[in-house]
Amino acid sequence: MLLLHRAVVLRLQQACRLKSIPSRIYIQACSTNDSFRPQYPSLTFCGDNSSTRGWKVMGTLLGLGAVLAYQDHRCRAAQESTRIYTKEEVSSHTSPETGIWVTLGSEVFDVTEFVDLHPGGPSKLMLAAGGPLEPFWALYAVHNQSHVRELLAQYKIGELNPEDKVAPTVETSDPYADDPVRHPALKVNSQRPFNAEPPPELLTENYITPNPIFFTRNHLPVPNLDPDTYRLHIVGAPGGQSLSLSLDDLHNFPKYEITVTLQCAGNRRSEMTQVKEVKGLEWRTGAISTARWAGARLCDVLAQAGHQPCETEAHVCFEGLDSDPTGTAYGASIPLARAMDPEAEVLLAYEMNGQPLPRDHGFPVRVVVPGVVGARHVKWLGRVSVQPEESYSHWQRRDYKGFSPSVDWDTVDFDSAPSIQELPVQSAITEPRDGETVESGEVTIKGYAWSGGGRAVIRVDVSLDGGLTWQVAKLDGEEQRPRKAWAWRLWQLQAPVPAGQRELNIVCKAVDDGYNVQPDTVAPIWNLRGVLSNAWHRVHVFVAP
Amino acid sequence: MLLLHRAVVLRLQQACRLKSIPSRIYIQACSTNDSFRPQYPSLTFCGDNSSTRGWKVMGTLLGLGAVLAYQDHRCRAAQESTRIYTKEEVSSHTSPETGIWVTLGSEVFDVTEFVDLHPGGPSKLMLAAGGPLEPFWALYAVHNQSHVRELLAQYKIGELNPEDKVAPTVETSDPYADDPVRHPALKVNSQRPFNAEPPPELLTENYITPNPIFFTRNHLPVPNLDPDTYRLHIVGAPGGQSLSLSLDDLHNFPKYEITVTLQCAGNRRSEMTQVKEVKGLEWRTGAISTARWAGARLCDVLAQAGHQPCETEAHVCFEGLDSDPTGTAYGASIPLARAMDPEAEVLLAYEMNGQPLPRDHGFPVRVVVPGVVGARHVKWLGRVSVQPEESYSHWQRRDYKGFSPSVDWDTVDFDSAPSIQELPVQSAITEPRDGETVESGEVTIKGYAWSGGGRAVIRVDVSLDGGLTWQVAKLDGEEQRPRKAWAWRLWQLQAPVPAGQRELNIVCKAVDDGYNVQPDTVAPIWNLRGVLSNAWHRVHVFVAP
Repeated sequence: MLLLHRAVVLRLQQACRLKSIPSRIYIQACSTNDSFRPQYPSLTFCGDNSSTRGWKVMGTLLGLGAVLAYQDHRCRAAQESTRIYTKEEVSSHTSPETGIWVTLGSEVFDVTEFVDLHPGGPSKLMLAAGGPLEPFWALYAVHNQSHVRELLAQYKIGELNPEDKVAPTVETSDPYADDPVRHPALKVNSQRPFNAEPPPELLTENYITPNPIFFTRNHLPVPNLDPDTYRLHIVGAPGGQSLSLSLDDLHNFPKYEITVTLQCAGNRRSEMTQVKEVKGLEWRTGAISTARWAGARLCDVLAQAGHQPCETEAHVCFEGLDSDPTGTAYGASIPLARAMDPEAEVLLAYEMNGQPLPRDHGFPVRVVVPGVVGARHVKWLGRVSVQPEESYSHWQRRDYKGFSPSVDWDTVDFDSAPSIQELPVQSAITEPRDGETVESGEVTIKGYAWSGGGRAVIRVDVSLDGGLTWQVAKLDGEEQRPRKAWAWRLWQLQAPVPAGQRELNIVCKAVDDGYNVQPDTVAPIWNLRGVLSNAWHRVHVFVAP
Repeated sequence: MLLLHRAVVLRLQQACRLKSIPSRIYIQACSTNDSFRPQYPSLTFCGDNSSTRGWKVMGTLLGLGAVLAYQDHRCRAAQESTRIYTKEEVSSHTSPETGIWVTLGSEVFDVTEFVDLHPGGPSKLMLAAGGPLEPFWALYAVHNQSHVRELLAQYKIGELNPEDKVAPTVETSDPYADDPVRHPALKVNSQRPFNAEPPPELLTENYITPNPIFFTRNHLPVPNLDPDTYRLHIVGAPGGQSLSLSLDDLHNFPKYEITVTLQCAGNRRSEMTQVKEVKGLEWRTGAISTARWAGARLCDVLAQAGHQPCETEAHVCFEGLDSDPTGTAYGASIPLARAMDPEAEVLLAYEMNGQPLPRDHGFPVRVVVPGVVGARHVKWLGRVSVQPEESYSHWQRRDYKGFSPSVDWDTVDFDSAPSIQELPVQSAITEPRDGETVESGEVTIKGYAWSGGGRAVIRVDVSLDGGLTWQVAKLDGEEQRPRKAWAWRLWQLQAPVPAGQRELNIVCKAVDDGYNVQPDTVAPIWNLRGVLSNAWHRVHVFVAP
């Protein structure tokens, strides 16, 4: 009863705000998709007497039977009629009090109720209040999906005066217009910001991933930085001095080169989605790649600014030069202890596989934190500072954390979990592909395996029967130094196909030198952000007769 | 049946140890817990026909009916007058059917009726059934109060036979004759060498495990070392000098004290045995314990002998002063990099929970290697040297390694796997016990969780339905410094028992700060030595109607 009451109040509120166009009331009242939102108790309806009017309507509405029939009728009627608004009218609806309106193409939407439900946060949606969504959808192209459009359609209240139609966005106002051209082999998960992975069959073709197909995980448009004017700002320690380093300055520090695998926390998220929906890009097995990175050691640069290792839990905070329309830059941090440890080999990298960093990978300078989740390898690095606590960036404190499968978006407490730093042991099959038909006789199985924190992969077990029996794969690639196994191992297994077998359930699982193993199944590690997806990888194939 | 068998063996074993020499033979012969130990074929314990005799005694005891009736008669008779009992008689009263007897000083009590009233829970009191209360009261000093003694007095049934106070005669030819007396609460997996674990309900009673019930993993007889003549030999570096350190010398190094959990690589091996036979002691969940260790830092001592950190894969080799009949000492090694890293906090420990080390735990000096498998914490330390490679000890190169489930004793290549150093994330349920009946309404679930390498446990998930749904347990105990979480977390969960549920399949799994998780099942991590058993822990209980 309370729920109905609330829902009706919300409908009424909306109706009143819309200057009592009766039919519109019923459109909204018919919607079954609106949620109960207790955070708006102060539902003031509109002008002086609107509140009274609202309550009167409410009283009437609560005499249910006839009312529902009436609504249903009016609702259908409403769907047939359309109201016209001027651009000016739309632009005056920018707050909960006035109602929050937006446009898309020629359509006008009242999204007041939706603002707090916006997956990207209310503040991001409020940037578009009173105006067109297009410039923002251009930035976050994840919106360009049918289910987002369907959801939006429920909030439609009319059409824009044809004379006021928003001119198509000019190319120059598109924040992504200047993004670099990408390799067509990349499987694109999101165009804006650009997120893409190499196809599995290319991924393990080389121990070192060629730059053009190295997986790309951007959060924002790619900045176009001039190497001649580029400066990296290092905030000095108390008693030390702040540094403003040109690229040449950075080259003057001793140069180190190391082979490091980067993996996105969301790698293999698509397998979690199969268990239950999560929020995030649909990465398959390719959000991982390996390169030779060269640059100055972070510890050397920090030391020059007067920083020293210390016993506290200080963090080194990184800020990128990529930023959203509000000016917020991408940011993340790592513990000072790791940053200052020469053995941890954290780099301010300016080279990737012997070339200057490609723009998609942070030109001219990015952080490389061996053994640590990709999200901390901040690209287009602009500023480094040492703080008593970890970065206050959204991506440090409100993202890239793991939770129990029991935690949902209503119960999640981001402060209760540590930010992901080192990643757990991982492996995946890149050949054959799921659903493929393989020859009878012998099958070749290939893949990669990696673990965080410099822990070496010591073994990969492969099963052809879904995990009942196992064979040990052959590890290829470099064997790295103990405690500094920053790069993956590629592996393969040639195995006879059991005679008469028509299908194979191929599974792989890796073991690292801390004897950590991968969990058997996905569901028990499912989490609402779909990160840390490292269950056994499974591929089902058919055997040619 | 197996449980009864075990219980009888244990009682017999206890009785025998305290009384006569020939009976000790039976203990060994009857025990099902001894491991296959190819390295000690020459350890002969018993006479020619002792094995046969042992089985005869067992056979008699297993002819249950008559025995129980007899005991019942004796029990009732005893209640009528003060009588004299032998220790053997007392030790046969360990169940509600036979009556539950305990002793305090020279007095014998029948506490059958009191067991369910015991404030600490019936299971705790049952640990003392058939034997003396003193060792348990020593652990839980709260008992040493007049009202507790008065209460106990009501249950007195007689006195102990004075002859039973005579110390057991020492058989000088027995290499284990000089082993220390142990706490009776310990569940003995092997008497010679002594290997025993605390029962689960005591294990997580305290964050710090009391010395007398700290799990004991001996490979050889316990040496009896004179602290005044004890010397620790440190082989000097080239250009440095070798050291021969007395205990006083060691005390002159700066003293460090840290809380560290030790876990045997074979902890929870009994669950692997259920999948397929393995070679090793049948550890249940108790081959893990936590203490405050104090001593000199290994890095300080090595530095004094001229050693420095270096980039090679040198190892620091430890030799114990325990040795087998051929003179081979226990030995193991750790990487020099860990030994020389002050942050790794490797100790040459001479104190355990504020006391000199107990003999079973390495008196006067043992190595403590935080975050690393118990096998490297060499006890009764005699010699430390730096070698280009890891120790050639059997226990370093031919044991304590993990293999694929596909590897058997015909195919195993010990050189193909690295020696276990850091251990993977682990957790287990200590309450309720498997097979127990719990009250309806609410169930309290307790346990421990730990991970190797200083990785902190960040979450424990608990399921009541075999892993379909999960709840997050509350972590107790100290939160340790990042990267130095050397000790376990105890945890508990109070959860409502779903109405109408007659059985619960309780499961726990832990996550560490590298987001490593435990595997779902045992079979895929099964290995021929039964080490690294860290699958989800499962307990099946019944719900009282």
